[in-house]
Amino acid sequence: MQRYFVSSAEMNDSSVTIIGDDANHIAKVMRMEIGDQVICSDNQGRVALCEITEIDRDTVKTSIIESIQESKESPIRVTIAQGIPKGDKLETIVQKGTELGAKAFLPFSSSRCIVKWDEKKGQKKTQRLEKIAKEAAEQSHRSRIPDVLSPVSFKSLLKQAAEFDYKIVAYEEEAKKGETKRLSELFNQMAPGASILCAIGPEGGLSEQEVDELKEAGFIPCGLGPRILRTETASSYILSAISYHFELMR
Amino acid sequence: MQRYFVSSAEMNDSSVTIIGDDANHIAKVMRMEIGDQVICSDNQGRVALCEITEIDRDTVKTSIIESIQESKESPIRVTIAQGIPKGDKLETIVQKGTELGAKAFLPFSSSRCIVKWDEKKGQKKTQRLEKIAKEAAEQSHRSRIPDVLSPVSFKSLLKQAAEFDYKIVAYEEEAKKGETKRLSELFNQMAPGASILCAIGPEGGLSEQEVDELKEAGFIPCGLGPRILRTETASSYILSAISYHFELMR
Repeated sequence: MQRYFVSSAEMNDSSVTIIGDDANHIAKVMRMEIGDQVICSDNQGRVALCEITEIDRDTVKTSIIESIQESKESPIRVTIAQGIPKGDKLETIVQKGTELGAKAFLPFSSSRCIVKWDEKKGQKKTQRLEKIAKEAAEQSHRSRIPDVLSPVSFKSLLKQAAEFDYKIVAYEEEAKKGETKRLSELFNQMAPGASILCAIGPEGGLSEQEVDELKEAGFIPCGLGPRILRTETASSYILSAISYHFELMR
Repeated sequence: MQRYFVSSAEMNDSSVTIIGDDANHIAKVMRMEIGDQVICSDNQGRVALCEITEIDRDTVKTSIIESIQESKESPIRVTIAQGIPKGDKLETIVQKGTELGAKAFLPFSSSRCIVKWDEKKGQKKTQRLEKIAKEAAEQSHRSRIPDVLSPVSFKSLLKQAAEFDYKIVAYEEEAKKGETKRLSELFNQMAPGASILCAIGPEGGLSEQEVDELKEAGFIPCGLGPRILRTETASSYILSAISYHFELMR
């Protein structure tokens, strides 16, 4: 069934109003009719099965049939800190990462980033990524849209790291040296509700100095298997491993 | 260091000859010089560190400095049977799947596949996918190039399944019902060297009848976590989970 996120203000005890692009999607793309059902989420944990009572191109009114209790969110709150990559790779990372259960995305610049974002470009990119996260959250039936945070400097990443229970950095030099134990050791220590910040370098990787600074800030360098992963594949690997460990193995 | 696959005929005890596109890549793209080093693999398990002794646009001659013993290949032989998706998604699946350790890719047609390949188109697509697999294997430092098999019918997929030790089908209806145990139970039964065939439907999924036929052929329907994954994300999830379970947890 089709899902839509609405603001809390648009969801009351008995009805939900869907506005803007989503109303247009219901009316023009899905060509739904009065009496059809959709699932609405307020992105704060409330999810409801709704029946359409009025359709307009700008506004769709629905009445709530029943509340839905569901647990689609990862028990681990994962933030993907991604060194800004080239082209549209960040869009892929946000789309796939949303399907795979990330709680937030934090783009950061580092010495080997080729693309530089000024404040204006960063703002525009963030808006585009927020839209991708919302659509991917709807498609993958999540109850919450992950946060797309504004891009930060490497220094600021180091500072923000203090807020997280656990911190790792994907480091291919560790993989080359045959490091294979740290990721699963860490997962075994983590309890549901824990937060983890996962730093992944851009295409050219992180410099040795950056990895040293991350280590000083409490990041544990982890290998992600014996093969060298592209930057956009590393987040999928980590999120899949977390889902497998915490959602399927237990 | 740059890696190239060569045919066994081009690798003898003391030297390796690199021809064709790869020779051009060394000469024109990488602008390497005599004395530079590359790693060559014969795709049969032999890997060697080589020094360039002659450069031509068509041919690069190297002498072997030393053999390299490495274990980059997954202990589990995973074949991804992928319902043919739209657009260039199969290219993404082969590229990411190669990085993540797949042994082979087997595209198949099923009732909800929108794209139909005739024999000629299938052949051309297979060649393109083989090239992507070779490049991704070089980039991810694998010792072997995964096989890209010719597309088969659903009936033929059922027949070929008999050759595999284990068979699973990613089935979102199982995920919706909250099936969370089978994948890890299965992995716990599997020993290094085992082969597994993983069937993944196209965008529209597999029909109930197709899932029934797969079950009769010995496929176990598995949920891949509580969120609904796109067809191109499912193979990454399975391969990452297998890598995590067999390469990092042990």
